[in-house]
Amino acid sequence: MDDINVDALFLGPKSENRSFFKEMLNFLMDDYMEWRRDYHATDQPAILESDHIRDDFRATLLKTRLTLTNLAANLQLKSMPWFSSRYLGHMTTDTLMAANLAYMLTLLYNPNNCAYEGSPATTELEIEVGKQLAAMLGYDTKKSWGHITSGGTIANYEGLWLARNLKSVPLAVADIAPDLVAGLDEWQLLNFSTKKTLDLLDRVQQEGLFERFRRHSAAGKGSGHGKLGKVLVAQSKHYSWVKAVDILGIGKENLIFIPVGPDYRMDISVLEQTLTTLLQQNVPVLTVVGIVGTTEEGAVDEIHRIAELRRAFEKQGLSFYFHIDAAYGGYARALFLSPDGSFMSPEQVQQEWQSPVFEKEKCRYPPESVYQAFKSMPEADSITIDPHKMGYVPYATGAIVAKDKRILSLISYFAAYVFEEKEENPVLLGSYIMEGSKAGATVAAAWTAHQITPLHARGYGRIIRRGIEAAIQFYHAMTDSKQLQINGKAFKAIPLIRPDLNILDFAFNRVGNSDLTKMNLLNQKIYEKCSYKSGPVYTNDFLTSKTALDSVDYGHVPGRFALAHGIPEQEWDRIRTVYILRMCIMTPFLTNHTPFDTFLGKFLQTMKEKISQIMNENEAFI
Amino acid sequence: MDDINVDALFLGPKSENRSFFKEMLNFLMDDYMEWRRDYHATDQPAILESDHIRDDFRATLLKTRLTLTNLAANLQLKSMPWFSSRYLGHMTTDTLMAANLAYMLTLLYNPNNCAYEGSPATTELEIEVGKQLAAMLGYDTKKSWGHITSGGTIANYEGLWLARNLKSVPLAVADIAPDLVAGLDEWQLLNFSTKKTLDLLDRVQQEGLFERFRRHSAAGKGSGHGKLGKVLVAQSKHYSWVKAVDILGIGKENLIFIPVGPDYRMDISVLEQTLTTLLQQNVPVLTVVGIVGTTEEGAVDEIHRIAELRRAFEKQGLSFYFHIDAAYGGYARALFLSPDGSFMSPEQVQQEWQSPVFEKEKCRYPPESVYQAFKSMPEADSITIDPHKMGYVPYATGAIVAKDKRILSLISYFAAYVFEEKEENPVLLGSYIMEGSKAGATVAAAWTAHQITPLHARGYGRIIRRGIEAAIQFYHAMTDSKQLQINGKAFKAIPLIRPDLNILDFAFNRVGNSDLTKMNLLNQKIYEKCSYKSGPVYTNDFLTSKTALDSVDYGHVPGRFALAHGIPEQEWDRIRTVYILRMCIMTPFLTNHTPFDTFLGKFLQTMKEKISQIMNENEAFI
Repeated sequence: MDDINVDALFLGPKSENRSFFKEMLNFLMDDYMEWRRDYHATDQPAILESDHIRDDFRATLLKTRLTLTNLAANLQLKSMPWFSSRYLGHMTTDTLMAANLAYMLTLLYNPNNCAYEGSPATTELEIEVGKQLAAMLGYDTKKSWGHITSGGTIANYEGLWLARNLKSVPLAVADIAPDLVAGLDEWQLLNFSTKKTLDLLDRVQQEGLFERFRRHSAAGKGSGHGKLGKVLVAQSKHYSWVKAVDILGIGKENLIFIPVGPDYRMDISVLEQTLTTLLQQNVPVLTVVGIVGTTEEGAVDEIHRIAELRRAFEKQGLSFYFHIDAAYGGYARALFLSPDGSFMSPEQVQQEWQSPVFEKEKCRYPPESVYQAFKSMPEADSITIDPHKMGYVPYATGAIVAKDKRILSLISYFAAYVFEEKEENPVLLGSYIMEGSKAGATVAAAWTAHQITPLHARGYGRIIRRGIEAAIQFYHAMTDSKQLQINGKAFKAIPLIRPDLNILDFAFNRVGNSDLTKMNLLNQKIYEKCSYKSGPVYTNDFLTSKTALDSVDYGHVPGRFALAHGIPEQEWDRIRTVYILRMCIMTPFLTNHTPFDTFLGKFLQTMKEKISQIMNENEAFI
Repeated sequence: MDDINVDALFLGPKSENRSFFKEMLNFLMDDYMEWRRDYHATDQPAILESDHIRDDFRATLLKTRLTLTNLAANLQLKSMPWFSSRYLGHMTTDTLMAANLAYMLTLLYNPNNCAYEGSPATTELEIEVGKQLAAMLGYDTKKSWGHITSGGTIANYEGLWLARNLKSVPLAVADIAPDLVAGLDEWQLLNFSTKKTLDLLDRVQQEGLFERFRRHSAAGKGSGHGKLGKVLVAQSKHYSWVKAVDILGIGKENLIFIPVGPDYRMDISVLEQTLTTLLQQNVPVLTVVGIVGTTEEGAVDEIHRIAELRRAFEKQGLSFYFHIDAAYGGYARALFLSPDGSFMSPEQVQQEWQSPVFEKEKCRYPPESVYQAFKSMPEADSITIDPHKMGYVPYATGAIVAKDKRILSLISYFAAYVFEEKEENPVLLGSYIMEGSKAGATVAAAWTAHQITPLHARGYGRIIRRGIEAAIQFYHAMTDSKQLQINGKAFKAIPLIRPDLNILDFAFNRVGNSDLTKMNLLNQKIYEKCSYKSGPVYTNDFLTSKTALDSVDYGHVPGRFALAHGIPEQEWDRIRTVYILRMCIMTPFLTNHTPFDTFLGKFLQTMKEKISQIMNENEAFI
């Protein structure tokens, strides 16, 4: 039976599964200790009883005990209670019990997945995890290539590294073997499709020109002054993309932000316009990055429409590398997969939810464009996806998957063409990827998580949908809610957008207030009351996060939200920032044995108390 | 008392300190579970007894148990027994017990050091660890800046990122504020010293031009075609440097390898020559990278002489950024520091060893140039140093430290000048460094390790010197040793160089053999007998690693080694590769309660058996 019970997967907000956790941990630790002891059983111990009773030995143990106790106290005082449904802020919650145990065990073996020699077990697991992720993302596992990174940021860099070096291929080939690209002008060389480029690379290899080619590619020559084209990404992007163009030597001047529409997804009509303009100006496009689950809003870019645009523009002679940053949202593709791996129809997806919430018409999920976006993901050339986000695996565990593994040769250290050798396991993984030394324990954690919780609707789907349900319920409850009466004044919370995933953004305003500065200050003060800023988080009743939507990143879209709060347009024009509260509802336990209305009642009561405190402390709100 | 007993720091090769480890672990786990339970004590559990008895709940636990048991079995079968003195191969050994416990505990809190908000405890510890490393490396902790990375590779990239963006500063300033650099030609602008560049940056900031400047720097414009100059690094470099120039958009054509001398350290006379030539040709030098502890040989480049050359060339108008890759050797600087933090005299260093080995004149340590190299490290602009190597902390934990924290502005995401705000703890660490999400647990592990084992001769020094002693004993024993008689033939092992640190490279040859191919094959076969290649590592008697020294990376230097083995020069000219065995002696337990001669006897006996097997299996050696 592949179905899982979500409640048995986590330690639980009250350490409810503590006895199982401790039993397993003790078993694993004893097993490990005996592994050491039994290795060449007759080898003599290096530490004797006579050492144990030495004064400096005892003093060292005492120091160890004191230091660890201090660390524990420090962590207890200052750590975020991710596990509790009182924490609805960043994209962090409790991690899978088995992933934690796997990490703790593997940590003691301390494998380094940089080289197979130092990690035979976990290198093999990494290749397996790469294939599992590829399958979930809809790629052909025989042709694709995926591996674990230390996070989505590094995965994004690696994606751009692939894109940059790929874009330089046809020009480099023209330098060293003009016959292979005879009759093509520079523009055509800069607009090969990904597949055509990789086929060309195969020919370069067959002709024995790979090493010469490499010296003429971006790897050999450097990034150039924008010759390889522009990087297009939604304004709602993660800031790692700005760092990426700097690091990769492309330069920030070659980064173009595509504004978001009212749904906080990339505005595809502007993307189309931009591509048209660039085509007219003969400016190549290095890559277009779509986002599946923006960090701030959980918005899902319309991947299907980006893919469609690429097809359309390729007909006009403009092509680009297509990367998806699904660091946050990637695992949500499990919601759409049946246990046999097929991408389900919208009706099947809804059937799988089996939840009373989704009986109501207004709570329907998935929205059509979200459904289509997830369906089209395999059209991208590479995808960033983070096990340490919706994979519920501990930090630091990101991943990247590329559709066509031939592309690996463009970033590999070795001169030889990578896939000449048919080795299943890379001898030196560190030479095919951006990073070097890397913890095998992260891989073991992800592998264990996937083993227990399959990557489909009845595995991860069951965990993730709990958060989406809660976010959508919150959205509707907030939309329909009455004003809150606090100290004789009326306040109202309004959600930013109907969530595409499990993130709900919202803001409060005093009814009748048309001063955006005051509204922003109110929400900033609420955030401060709901974060480390107001004292030890451990004693706080509710913790959340915040973000500021300003015109630099969001154009005038947030102005509409301000307007919904009764803030006139000219006020937005003056201030150009809306401060909002942001809840990632990753916890699967929000409404376990607690009806949603009960949770909502508590939440609103807490908000009332905090706003009341703010009113008492700040003249502006009296 | 700051002194520590090394035997009390590790779990021990036979799990000798098991009872302490388990007691601490149980304490920490219970403490953690109660932290969860006590958070808002009256909140109701999310998982009830009635859930625990459900069939699918039980089935999920069973699946968890089975998966973890399988993982444990897989790890036992295929993991490397780093903890044993039978493993002398890669730079890995047992890690500090307290670091492991700290990691296991912190993992459950799952802090992400990307943002302070998600990791108040561990972000503060990271700043502290950065200062500890800076102090050990001889930097002024008030002016420097250090942080944890996921490894030395990423730290090296960040170092080159700093160097590249720094090099572009004066030219960018000439674009936007020519008055500030009036009268200087391009060559002069490309040869500002680091300090002068950072002072110029301060002026840019004072004039309110920082944002405009950034758009004209390498961050804004891209890396260009070699305009910023050459990257010079010893041929013995780690391959991450080749990846680095590709990733950073500098291009491999701008990487110059400086050959090594007979001691496998960078040949400083060639460096000087190269700098002279580049100066004559008006080709700028972006950076020179010195290595403290090469991956293959543990060789320590003469840092003091590189620093000296920089001073000399600056007088002639050529300057460069100076980075040290001390990923491996950085922690060995503790050997030279007294508990009060001062850099000791060579006599004091030797006094601290208090070891019978170093009574013998021939075993003297440190060699003068190694001593001077470590002493001069603070002259570098930045240094890579890996806690997961000689810091005895689990993967993945690297670090970089920069001498002058003003440089941080050149890679930070935010427009504002970083050190305007005097915040002690960065609100968003991820915006000042290369990585984004990062495990706070690695930081807690490094912090705990440093807390218990101070970064001086009586802390880390005591651990590290055990390996160096063993390596030097091995070196002399091997040099002085008689031939091994095996199946009627004579064999001899010869060490490559007298170790600068704790790595011993060596190779066997049959006495009288002058065929380099046969000698290489013999050592390759020995390696295969001493690695996963000959079956389960768990049952192997001895495990080591290997490397190939070829003329591409080492010029003709390895030819001398072949010659010492009786291989004529023309044979080296024909084959141009010497295959050698490589032992990193990181374990502090090699000679605990076992005289070195006993260990050596066992080692030679094992080698005899393996060579005998090889002779039986391969006609070539009969």
